[in-house]
Amino acid sequence: MGSTVALGLFPCDSPRFFGRLGASKRPFLGCCLALDESSEGGEGGRAPETRDLLLAAAYVSDAQYNRNVPFETSPQAIRLYYFYNHWTMQAATYFFICVDLSLALFEEPALFPLPFLATSIAEVLCLTAFFGRLVHFAKVTPQMVFWKDTKNICIMVTIVLTLVDLILYGSLEAVNIRSVRWSRALRPVFLINFPESRQIRRAFRSIRNTLPDILYVFLLFTFSMLVFSLMALKLFGDRGLKTAEGSPYFENILEVVFELYVLVTTANSPDIMMPAYDFNWWYSLYFITYIIINTYIFMSVFLAVVYNNYRKHLKNEIRKLAYLKRRKMIEAFNILKVKVGPEFVVGEARWRRLVHSVAPDMSLGHLELLLRISDEGQTGHVDKMNFLRLADLLNIQVVTINIKRHPLEAWVPRLYQSSASLLVQKVVRHRIFVWAFDVIILINAIFIALDEKNPFISYAEWLFLSLYVIEILLKLYTYEPRAYFGRKQFWNWFDTLIIIAALVATVANATIQSARKYNSQQILDIVLILRILRLLRVIISVQRFRVIVTTLINIGPTMLTFGGLVFVVYYAFAIVGMEVFHGKVQFFDPNFTTPHALVCGNPALQGSAFSRARYCKNNFNDLASSFVVLMELTVVNHVLLLADGFALVTHQAAKLYFILFHIVVVILIVNIFIAFILEAFFVAYSLEKSEVETAIEKKIQELGVGIQEEEVQEGKPTDDVDAKDRGDNKRKALEGLYCRIASKKYRTVDTLLQRMFESEIAPEEEGPSLDEILNFSPSDIYPKNPNFENSA
Amino acid sequence: MGSTVALGLFPCDSPRFFGRLGASKRPFLGCCLALDESSEGGEGGRAPETRDLLLAAAYVSDAQYNRNVPFETSPQAIRLYYFYNHWTMQAATYFFICVDLSLALFEEPALFPLPFLATSIAEVLCLTAFFGRLVHFAKVTPQMVFWKDTKNICIMVTIVLTLVDLILYGSLEAVNIRSVRWSRALRPVFLINFPESRQIRRAFRSIRNTLPDILYVFLLFTFSMLVFSLMALKLFGDRGLKTAEGSPYFENILEVVFELYVLVTTANSPDIMMPAYDFNWWYSLYFITYIIINTYIFMSVFLAVVYNNYRKHLKNEIRKLAYLKRRKMIEAFNILKVKVGPEFVVGEARWRRLVHSVAPDMSLGHLELLLRISDEGQTGHVDKMNFLRLADLLNIQVVTINIKRHPLEAWVPRLYQSSASLLVQKVVRHRIFVWAFDVIILINAIFIALDEKNPFISYAEWLFLSLYVIEILLKLYTYEPRAYFGRKQFWNWFDTLIIIAALVATVANATIQSARKYNSQQILDIVLILRILRLLRVIISVQRFRVIVTTLINIGPTMLTFGGLVFVVYYAFAIVGMEVFHGKVQFFDPNFTTPHALVCGNPALQGSAFSRARYCKNNFNDLASSFVVLMELTVVNHVLLLADGFALVTHQAAKLYFILFHIVVVILIVNIFIAFILEAFFVAYSLEKSEVETAIEKKIQELGVGIQEEEVQEGKPTDDVDAKDRGDNKRKALEGLYCRIASKKYRTVDTLLQRMFESEIAPEEEGPSLDEILNFSPSDIYPKNPNFENSA
Repeated sequence: MGSTVALGLFPCDSPRFFGRLGASKRPFLGCCLALDESSEGGEGGRAPETRDLLLAAAYVSDAQYNRNVPFETSPQAIRLYYFYNHWTMQAATYFFICVDLSLALFEEPALFPLPFLATSIAEVLCLTAFFGRLVHFAKVTPQMVFWKDTKNICIMVTIVLTLVDLILYGSLEAVNIRSVRWSRALRPVFLINFPESRQIRRAFRSIRNTLPDILYVFLLFTFSMLVFSLMALKLFGDRGLKTAEGSPYFENILEVVFELYVLVTTANSPDIMMPAYDFNWWYSLYFITYIIINTYIFMSVFLAVVYNNYRKHLKNEIRKLAYLKRRKMIEAFNILKVKVGPEFVVGEARWRRLVHSVAPDMSLGHLELLLRISDEGQTGHVDKMNFLRLADLLNIQVVTINIKRHPLEAWVPRLYQSSASLLVQKVVRHRIFVWAFDVIILINAIFIALDEKNPFISYAEWLFLSLYVIEILLKLYTYEPRAYFGRKQFWNWFDTLIIIAALVATVANATIQSARKYNSQQILDIVLILRILRLLRVIISVQRFRVIVTTLINIGPTMLTFGGLVFVVYYAFAIVGMEVFHGKVQFFDPNFTTPHALVCGNPALQGSAFSRARYCKNNFNDLASSFVVLMELTVVNHVLLLADGFALVTHQAAKLYFILFHIVVVILIVNIFIAFILEAFFVAYSLEKSEVETAIEKKIQELGVGIQEEEVQEGKPTDDVDAKDRGDNKRKALEGLYCRIASKKYRTVDTLLQRMFESEIAPEEEGPSLDEILNFSPSDIYPKNPNFENSA
Repeated sequence: MGSTVALGLFPCDSPRFFGRLGASKRPFLGCCLALDESSEGGEGGRAPETRDLLLAAAYVSDAQYNRNVPFETSPQAIRLYYFYNHWTMQAATYFFICVDLSLALFEEPALFPLPFLATSIAEVLCLTAFFGRLVHFAKVTPQMVFWKDTKNICIMVTIVLTLVDLILYGSLEAVNIRSVRWSRALRPVFLINFPESRQIRRAFRSIRNTLPDILYVFLLFTFSMLVFSLMALKLFGDRGLKTAEGSPYFENILEVVFELYVLVTTANSPDIMMPAYDFNWWYSLYFITYIIINTYIFMSVFLAVVYNNYRKHLKNEIRKLAYLKRRKMIEAFNILKVKVGPEFVVGEARWRRLVHSVAPDMSLGHLELLLRISDEGQTGHVDKMNFLRLADLLNIQVVTINIKRHPLEAWVPRLYQSSASLLVQKVVRHRIFVWAFDVIILINAIFIALDEKNPFISYAEWLFLSLYVIEILLKLYTYEPRAYFGRKQFWNWFDTLIIIAALVATVANATIQSARKYNSQQILDIVLILRILRLLRVIISVQRFRVIVTTLINIGPTMLTFGGLVFVVYYAFAIVGMEVFHGKVQFFDPNFTTPHALVCGNPALQGSAFSRARYCKNNFNDLASSFVVLMELTVVNHVLLLADGFALVTHQAAKLYFILFHIVVVILIVNIFIAFILEAFFVAYSLEKSEVETAIEKKIQELGVGIQEEEVQEGKPTDDVDAKDRGDNKRKALEGLYCRIASKKYRTVDTLLQRMFESEIAPEEEGPSLDEILNFSPSDIYPKNPNFENSA
């Protein structure tokens, strides 16, 4: 969202936009606002009018992008606020955050070592940038709000702590005392706490809100685990049983608890059971009971609690957002309204200027369309109800398609319309054409699987590639190229890019190979991967696959949120892990078979399962390796082996690190991830059932400039639409232009939920006051008499 | 449900119930119906009236227990139907099913071998019983319905197939040719297909309905796996890498596919990654991508699809049930109705007789209460709307409590009311008393963990036991014993039973130990477990724990359904597994260290990870072992080890068995289990928020005979209620009796859902026709304009 801020450097379409104030003077307010002010000034120098428009545009823009930063309404503050929201500022912030986080790659233990001086200077630079951003924010927002916001306090405290740590570490370093750079684990705080990372913060809030509920389940779970541990100790401890490795079995209560905790993750099943099971069949019942209760039931209950809370709080947050949006639109309306007859309205000219300020790059046709929708009766002004919808209207992406003939038809009409050419077009459009290429892809897959040393097969590779290229050319011959590569034609782009990439890669490969000895392993690998990725084209021709993939892609942006969440947790754990386990386990080339290399350079691992499984490269010696180890811990399997290994080289207490990681990542975050996917699928599913035609879609149909989405999807928008003659008189207004809503499939879960919720707020309703909105509690949402639908 | 059939052997409370027809003549129609007929006969010999009542009672009883068997309405058929629903008949059916299923324990490969003749005779007996049950059902239900029902066809086909198999196997056995008893895998058919196993069938239907939706996701998942396999083959195949065990790495496409499928289950992570990771850090990205896409995203999508379908179909089924119930109640009403004034009603006398027929063991007070609710205006008859509620009223368990003084107070009032005695009572009721015992339990836990060889500790054991006994005695002294051990006082029973069991076990242990050398390991183990289970008492004193445990107990019955489902699948897989893998892996005593024993008696396992991990006891040599192995496969960890081991001793194709098991059990059944727990928790949660007070509860309050549930929960119903003087004139009708609804917490999910759905059917509505009901499709449920609540 942040990257497509409304006001800014977008070029204005008309030269008359350059008015009295050049863009160079106030570069961040953009040319279009400048125009407004100048033309307004020309009319009578009404500066207050411009200020009002600026303020209203800020409100509308905030409503459109769901920004919820309270800002001062003085003209200066508003300008600062525009500047604050400008994409360059946001990009700069993220750049410094990235630099700050990536410092861990260069600090000891480093992947690419740099001297302490270099990294510390970089860090100080980053801190300065963060501080600057914070000061900027403080100027924009009222003092009271600024100091109440924990986000800002967090950032400030972290900056101070980091500085303290830097100075301490630096001075100790100067006298050659090694200390710990503990403040590095705090770095993700910056990523979380800048206002732009709203999604990640929401995920964290979700977790925090879940904690009280999950705590009791966790306590009960722990209790059950302890009771089972005591039983295991008494039942098996005195039998003198040995594990497969010959170590004593269940003889120490702490060890039993740890083993049973690992059994919950299933990571040591069935090994942990075998000695007892070998001794007596009946003891398997103990383990089966344990697994059913603690692994299946408790883990499901964790998921249920997390999911329930996630759902509850998601609804609450979205409800808050919906009300805040409404509130901002009302503010904007109140600024711009004039009284016409019995009611307040916004004049058409003003409305146009407002929309232009908010979305300067909007095409005239699009703006006209929005006006038609907002001013249904063509009365020359927009009433309150329609005005409040503006933010939503702006959010709906309308793709305008210039319906044009195929260029070839324009250039060589006779040839293009010849019977041979028409036959080609008919063949390309036929379903069998698609199927034929699916078969070719499958044959290609078999060829890839075969040995490529055979020259015949490597020639076949060229044949396949040329077939694919011919396919694309034929398609471009048949369909209008600009429509085929339309902005939202995801699958066409996907298809073409894969082919081009494969082509480039294969050519590169051949070039390198012809240069006798190729030395770049990487390029060869990439060629390989690209050759195989080509197989993904099969997905395109199966409708059901396309639907699933589209849903997954829709979920994508929010999945990135979870990526951010996981990254933050990983980073903190990696820094701690590096401090604790750094250098304890060393990796040697697999061909080294000296005893020292076989025990990963640490005699404590002599004879351990860790070294026997050759896990030496699973270490915390740099950030990248740490992340791989943490990923393995997330996957859970063989956690025991890793935990045991690192406990051997340090201390048994190190196991706590692994248990804590499991609780945080697997029990909390992975469950929230699953909850999120479940919810996303349900929302997507329930929406497929009910096509909520928006006002825009209706209007487009009314105006006769619509295109059926299916036609576009099939890749043949031009001809079919051209063939039909749609109400021409209506069309005049928006001549030469066809509009359609960007595919409904590309909406995110948040948007969908928010729209659903908004449909429940009555159009006239002003909504609760700001304070009330901010203090919504999740339980307020629940209706008094739940019926079947909302509980099941 | 089946075990508490309404009509039957319950004793009637009054001697006048024994009329002209003795219970001996028609033992299964019960004495109460006999009374009705006789007294009716005395009034004027109106046999049709009795028949009507019988039919109406059958309808009401079916509605009460949600039985949906269409039956003939001739008097004979109705009597057969009563007989069919009688608990003895159902118990007998289940008995024979158990015998049939348990035959696998005695057949080759047997846990307890029996000759073929014995097991085959037992099997023929069971088949006869099943056939008899089927014939009985055919007599009850209309011919058309019987032959249309796939359940019946299934049973018949299975009986015939089993007989054919038995004869074939027997004759081949006679000429000493060993063949395969393949029909054994069909045995679970009987468990599924008898009408009593409605819940298991519903779970199976749920799975069947999910299949089409899941199929496409599965295909896409397979496709993604194949593309990744091809990549792995090309990227790693030619490098000459070796796994930690020295075997070639990713050199064969089939092997690669299998390894990557196992990686989805996470069972071979991170081992499968290590060689490539050791070779080059970047290759870890391949595996991380693979795990994110195929393990996290696809597995979550599977859960989402399964859950979505489960929810959809659950709602549909429950809606069907609700409509069918309504229909049956209308049938019953139409049989009994008479016209009074403008509307049809059921007379009070007739209504009483009906209720008596349906629930012969209902107390007079309870019946009176129901009548008061149904006949609100005391008009002497019950109108249609109230009549339709009867099935629900009957389903609500009303606990009648006889409020009495403490027996000690009656016997020795002076002593019991003395200041010392009152002080004791006050102490026992105080919260600190509970806490003190919690502390004692915790100290006890520590003592258990310590070494019990120490005589001081074994004496302490007696001290703790006596403290617990004193606690229970004190409670019985303070609270009225009959109220304390009321029918629904789960936690009091739990507490007392645990103490008694521990007492008995400890005494038994001491007795055995005093008899010098104890030889029974089992008793000692049980004592140990009981001693430790005592710690569970801590749960009672933490309110939040109690809530969680109560919810889990509520889910219990339906979890048993899943137990049934899992059992059916396990049984079929176990039979197949025993036929295929029987005897290939043998278990020797762990102390045997001959080379033969170390490779589990099979040279093919020489040097395999299977034998190194000492998995010899994980074999398919009998039913019990097979179940343990299948349980281990369900838990997934180290599946690869097991699959590899069994593939080594048979053929690589054996791995298909393990993959199939994973798809069926882990992807389908475990996901349905999780879906079920999620749904159950959400329903329970949404209901806790809104206390839907039923008509009965209101009436009880109106009549002034209610008891606050909390008072009873706290274990002090008697005194508090006695102290309060509730509207005495109202109470006269039900003198000396307090009623309360059995705790709301003990309701099952099904009941809750059904009640919610019923509240949406208008009271007047007759509902759709029977055919329409049976052909409901899940999509009918969805409202036309879904709003926020039902989609999110």
